Amino acid sequence: MLERMPTLSDLQEAAERVKPFVHQTPVLSSEQINEITGKELFFKCENLQKVGAFKFRGACNAVFSLSEKEASKGVATHSSGNHAAALALAAKKRGISAHIVMPRTAPEVKKRAVAGYGGIITFCEPTLEARESTLAQVIEQTGALSIHPYDNYTIIAGQSTSAQELLKQVQELDVVMTPVGGGGLLSGTALAVKYLQPNTKVYAAEPLGADDAYRSIQAGRWLPSVSPNTICDGLLTSLGQKNFPIIQEHVDKIITVSDESVIRAMRLIWERMKIIIEPSSAVCLAAILEHGEHFPEKRIGIILSGGNVDLGSLPFNESP
Amino acid sequence: MLERMPTLSDLQEAAERVKPFVHQTPVLSSEQINEITGKELFFKCENLQKVGAFKFRGACNAVFSLSEKEASKGVATHSSGNHAAALALAAKKRGISAHIVMPRTAPEVKKRAVAGYGGIITFCEPTLEARESTLAQVIEQTGALSIHPYDNYTIIAGQSTSAQELLKQVQELDVVMTPVGGGGLLSGTALAVKYLQPNTKVYAAEPLGADDAYRSIQAGRWLPSVSPNTICDGLLTSLGQKNFPIIQEHVDKIITVSDESVIRAMRLIWERMKIIIEPSSAVCLAAILEHGEHFPEKRIGIILSGGNVDLGSLPFNESP
Repeated sequence: MLERMPTLSDLQEAAERVKPFVHQTPVLSSEQINEITGKELFFKCENLQKVGAFKFRGACNAVFSLSEKEASKGVATHSSGNHAAALALAAKKRGISAHIVMPRTAPEVKKRAVAGYGGIITFCEPTLEARESTLAQVIEQTGALSIHPYDNYTIIAGQSTSAQELLKQVQELDVVMTPVGGGGLLSGTALAVKYLQPNTKVYAAEPLGADDAYRSIQAGRWLPSVSPNTICDGLLTSLGQKNFPIIQEHVDKIITVSDESVIRAMRLIWERMKIIIEPSSAVCLAAILEHGEHFPEKRIGIILSGGNVDLGSLPFNESP
Repeated sequence: MLERMPTLSDLQEAAERVKPFVHQTPVLSSEQINEITGKELFFKCENLQKVGAFKFRGACNAVFSLSEKEASKGVATHSSGNHAAALALAAKKRGISAHIVMPRTAPEVKKRAVAGYGGIITFCEPTLEARESTLAQVIEQTGALSIHPYDNYTIIAGQSTSAQELLKQVQELDVVMTPVGGGGLLSGTALAVKYLQPNTKVYAAEPLGADDAYRSIQAGRWLPSVSPNTICDGLLTSLGQKNFPIIQEHVDKIITVSDESVIRAMRLIWERMKIIIEPSSAVCLAAILEHGEHFPEKRIGIILSGGNVDLGSLPFNESP
């Protein structure tokens, strides 16, 4: 596992390492959404990635970069979301065990997904303290290696592989854009773009109700997320300590958006592009729709981070 | 416009003709759905085609194969569905007018789509008689050329271009499979597969509640659809007279499925593949799930015909 900021070689090695396991996801465009926004938008579809999210890239890079000895006791994490499923599947593909601490209140569908990939689940109370102390116990008992979902350089290098693919799939992008929650995808993307194509800008979008990345950049120091509240359930976490300085150095702009814009953008992508994205993935298009003034550029690549939603409770159950 | 059964050259010319206008749609796979079915399934995503359906291929082939003189008065059709939007967009791209007769009861979203592509809409009563007599009036007044949605050899050649792409994108398919309604997609697909790769089988799936193609093949003669009733709104039409003999000669099997299987298959594709398909597109996977005994083959290509659904009224608005 990397103990320092990833170099270009680290990112390229990550791309080679994960290649046999991940989908090279397609880049889709919509003439209609281009007409509405007046842009040329290129959507990199990590919602079509295995486990339905970019998280599988980082998990694969982490799991497959371990030595035989490091891997021998398995891996562990606490997560109620996509990282849990991603780590479980990556571990399954390497043939090692994955110990996942999940809050007992996690959605049934997520518990089933982790179990379906062979993850060994330990339930805990739904507090950060309980999650961390339970994970510490599991690690003590099993000797498994803890893999943080984003505050981890090997994970960051893994998440960079989506942007590396995107830059090969679409030439001459003016901007590459991602959502920001913990910052794993954004920091990996920023490194890839700035190493490989430094004239291309990197923007991020963040829900107003969980705007700790925006506030941290404004303040010039890391600020935690306090009582975040947004429909973007993937973006509720605080920015990682390793992610923050990378974002501070390499990200050109963070734009905050309302949940109303997120729902509008999400519906637009479902209806016009016929793909399923989760609310967190809609923040970038929401930013372009809500804050066109921040986008003088024309050709914008957007990483759609994931597609895991509960079809039984969608935010648009009525006709417009 | 073709007045005879399309030859291999006709199909290849259609592929060249539509290429600048259509998306080369991706082929997606799901490890999870492969595990569930015990097959290797390759989904050709015409739901990601422009206007959200394969229909745009046929409409483009028809519109762009017209001479300047034929095209000068525009094109016309009656349709409440995907063909209307497809013809309107194809005509817009050629810069000619499209006259669309729609029942006044058609969903607002479909009326807006046709109008959005610049189609000139004439509303009529929601009966086949009213649709046909209104179309005849429109043609008399405008001199526009009528383009039938499926009972038309140029349309059939256009629809074949999806299977032509699929055969290039995935090698050594044992079976290629499509839904069957009017039979435009199925007859085009059957011709493409049998001309280009005659050892590959062609199967179709059809809802039990609209099984006129199945019954026609069993009876050895064309039988109309009588009071069809199924959630697959795209498959309610009767098989076309030009489509039937092609299907009779080149399609190896038609399998009928219940609406319950269709909803299950549709949900599986939404949840596991993160793409939006309409119920009509789910019949092929439904057939594999419901009637595994009909599928000794392993590698099956499935054309997902379209993704136009009303997000406000989905058949799975509750958690499982």
